Amino acid sequence: MKNKKLVLQKRPVGMPSEDCWDLQEDVLQELQDGELLIENHYVSLDPAMRGWMNEAKSYIEPIALGDVMRAGSIGKVIQSNGHPMFKEGDVLSGMGGVQQYVKTDGKGFYKVDTSLAPMTKYIAVLGMPGMTAYFGILDVGAIKEGDRVLVSGAAGAVGSIVGQIAKIKGCEVVGIAGSKEKCDYVVNTLGFTSCINYKEENMYAALKQHCPKGIDVYFDNVGGDILDTSLAFLRKKARVVLCGAISQYNAEKVQGPNNYLSLLVNRARMEGMIVFDYADRYKEAAMQMGMWMMEGKLKTEEDVYSGIENFYSTFQRLFTGEKRGKLVLKIKEDE
Amino acid sequence: MKNKKLVLQKRPVGMPSEDCWDLQEDVLQELQDGELLIENHYVSLDPAMRGWMNEAKSYIEPIALGDVMRAGSIGKVIQSNGHPMFKEGDVLSGMGGVQQYVKTDGKGFYKVDTSLAPMTKYIAVLGMPGMTAYFGILDVGAIKEGDRVLVSGAAGAVGSIVGQIAKIKGCEVVGIAGSKEKCDYVVNTLGFTSCINYKEENMYAALKQHCPKGIDVYFDNVGGDILDTSLAFLRKKARVVLCGAISQYNAEKVQGPNNYLSLLVNRARMEGMIVFDYADRYKEAAMQMGMWMMEGKLKTEEDVYSGIENFYSTFQRLFTGEKRGKLVLKIKEDE
Repeated sequence: MKNKKLVLQKRPVGMPSEDCWDLQEDVLQELQDGELLIENHYVSLDPAMRGWMNEAKSYIEPIALGDVMRAGSIGKVIQSNGHPMFKEGDVLSGMGGVQQYVKTDGKGFYKVDTSLAPMTKYIAVLGMPGMTAYFGILDVGAIKEGDRVLVSGAAGAVGSIVGQIAKIKGCEVVGIAGSKEKCDYVVNTLGFTSCINYKEENMYAALKQHCPKGIDVYFDNVGGDILDTSLAFLRKKARVVLCGAISQYNAEKVQGPNNYLSLLVNRARMEGMIVFDYADRYKEAAMQMGMWMMEGKLKTEEDVYSGIENFYSTFQRLFTGEKRGKLVLKIKEDE
Repeated sequence: MKNKKLVLQKRPVGMPSEDCWDLQEDVLQELQDGELLIENHYVSLDPAMRGWMNEAKSYIEPIALGDVMRAGSIGKVIQSNGHPMFKEGDVLSGMGGVQQYVKTDGKGFYKVDTSLAPMTKYIAVLGMPGMTAYFGILDVGAIKEGDRVLVSGAAGAVGSIVGQIAKIKGCEVVGIAGSKEKCDYVVNTLGFTSCINYKEENMYAALKQHCPKGIDVYFDNVGGDILDTSLAFLRKKARVVLCGAISQYNAEKVQGPNNYLSLLVNRARMEGMIVFDYADRYKEAAMQMGMWMMEGKLKTEEDVYSGIENFYSTFQRLFTGEKRGKLVLKIKEDE
C-alpha cells in the first residue's frame, strides 16, 4: 500500500517557494503491535505552519528537513493492530501531517463524533482555530459587556469566531478584512457591528470613525501597520491579544509596533497566546461553541480545496488572503 | 513677597533646549480664605516631566504654555489662612512645581512626618519613584521567588528600588546601567546579583551570560534597543513592565520593539503602568518600604543639586545619565 506525502526539503527565506516541499510516495510498512493506520480525509492549513518551517526553535520544535509537513488533520482509522483505545472506523483528529495515511501509536490523536458535526468542523471551529479564538478572546482578551472589540483577519478562521464570541458576550465588534466582499460577509453574515477594508481605507481615519471612544480589546492576527495604528486607539486598561502576525511571517525583518508606548500611557497590556496551553479545557470550549452553533449564534465556514498535489497553491492563499473562513485541503480522493 | 518660578514658554522638539523655560519673578498675591502658602524646599526631577511638556494629551493634561513647570515637590507651610487640614509648620508633599512658593488650597498635597525620614526621601523612595517601583514590580511584574528579573536604569530612582524589592522577594536580579561605577554601586551597595554596563558590553552576549535560562520579568525604564534585545530572552509566561522609555522621550520617531513576537511564542505579556492609579495604596507601600529601610534591606540615595537657576543643567542629567539614584533640585536657599 502506497502513501503520498509532502516532505519539507528546504527552509524558506521570505515567502516559501514551491521547491521547499517535495511530494513523495513510499510504501507503508506493516503496523507494529498497538499501532493504527489512519486515512487522512482533510488537513488544516494555518498561518502557524509558516513558523514551523523555520529552523529556530519556537514554542514547538521546527519541522525537520526530510520530515512530513506538519499539519492538523482529520481521518478515519482503517486498520488497528490491537490499539487499546481506537478501532477501525473511528474518526480521529490530531497532527497527522500532509499525507494520505498516518501510521501511528495514536499519541496526540483524539476521537470525534461525526454524527454531531461534519469532519471539517473538527479542524476548524471545533479544532485549533476555534480553540484559539475562544481562549484568546475570553481568557487573554478578558472581554466584558460593552467593550469595543477590534479584530483583524475578521473573515478568517480565527477572527470570524473571535468577533462572534465577542458579540455573544455583548461587545461592539469592529472587524478588519481585505476586501469589500469579506467586509460584507463579516457584517451581514457574521453580525459584526462594522468592518474596515484595510486595502481601501485609511486605517487611522477608519478607526477614528469606527472606534470613536477607542478600543478596549484588540485581537491581532496580522501585525505590521494595522497593529501599530490600532495601538494609537487603546483605551485605559485595554488588552491586545497577540494571536498571529500574518503580515510579518515572510518578512526578513519583523516590523515592531512603534506606538507601543500607548500601552504605557493607557496602562494597557499586550499578551501572546498559544492554543496548546489550553489543551485541558478544549472540551469546555467545544461544548460551548457547539451549543452556540446549534442556537444559530455562531456561524462558521470552511473553504475547502482538493488534492495533496494542490497543497502549494492552497497554502499560498493564507498569505494572499484569497480565502474565506477556515482554509482546508481535502486529501482523500473521491471514490 | 516675591516668588521665583520656572515657566514653560515653548514646547520642545527632541531634547528640550534651555529656552523652553523662562525663570520669572512675580509678587505673591494675598491668601484667600482657606488657602496655604508653602515654601518649596525640594523639587523632584523625573523623566515623566519630559512627556508633560508635549502638546498631546496623555495620561495627564499637558503643562500649558505660560504655566509653572509641573514637578513633584516638598516644602513647609509658612502661612495658613484658616486651612481646615494644614497649619503653619506642616511639611507637605505634592505637585508644587518648579517655584519657590506655592499658593494653594492644598488639594493634592499630603502631610509627611520628617521625624521618620528626611524631606528628600518623601519625593524619592517614599514618593512617586518609590511607589512606581513598588507597584510596578509587585503588581504588574507579579514577581515570584526564584524569578530571574532584569531591570534597566538600575542605578536610577525607580530601577534601584525595583531590583532591591525583587531581591527581598527571593528573585535573582540583573541590572542594566550606563557606567562601571554605576554597575559597581548596583551590585556592591544595592545587592543585585549582577549588572550589565550597556555602554561597554554587547547586550545580546551579556544577556546570554547573565540570564542563561532567560528572563521571567523585565522592568523597562529605557525602551529602544535594550527593550528589543531583552524581549529575545523572555521565558514562558514572562512579564514586561513598561514603566518608562528614557531613550525615546526626545526621539522624533519612537523605535518600537521589533522582537515583539517573542511575547506571542512565549505567551508573555507587556503591560504599562502609571503610578497615579495606585494612589489609594500609597500608604501600604510607604509603610512597607519604611520597614525595609529600617531593617537595612532597602538602600536609597538622592542626588541633590541646588538652585532654581540650575534647573536646566540638572534636568539634562536625566537624559545624559550623569546622576545616581533620585535626582532632586533644592529650591530653598540656605539662610
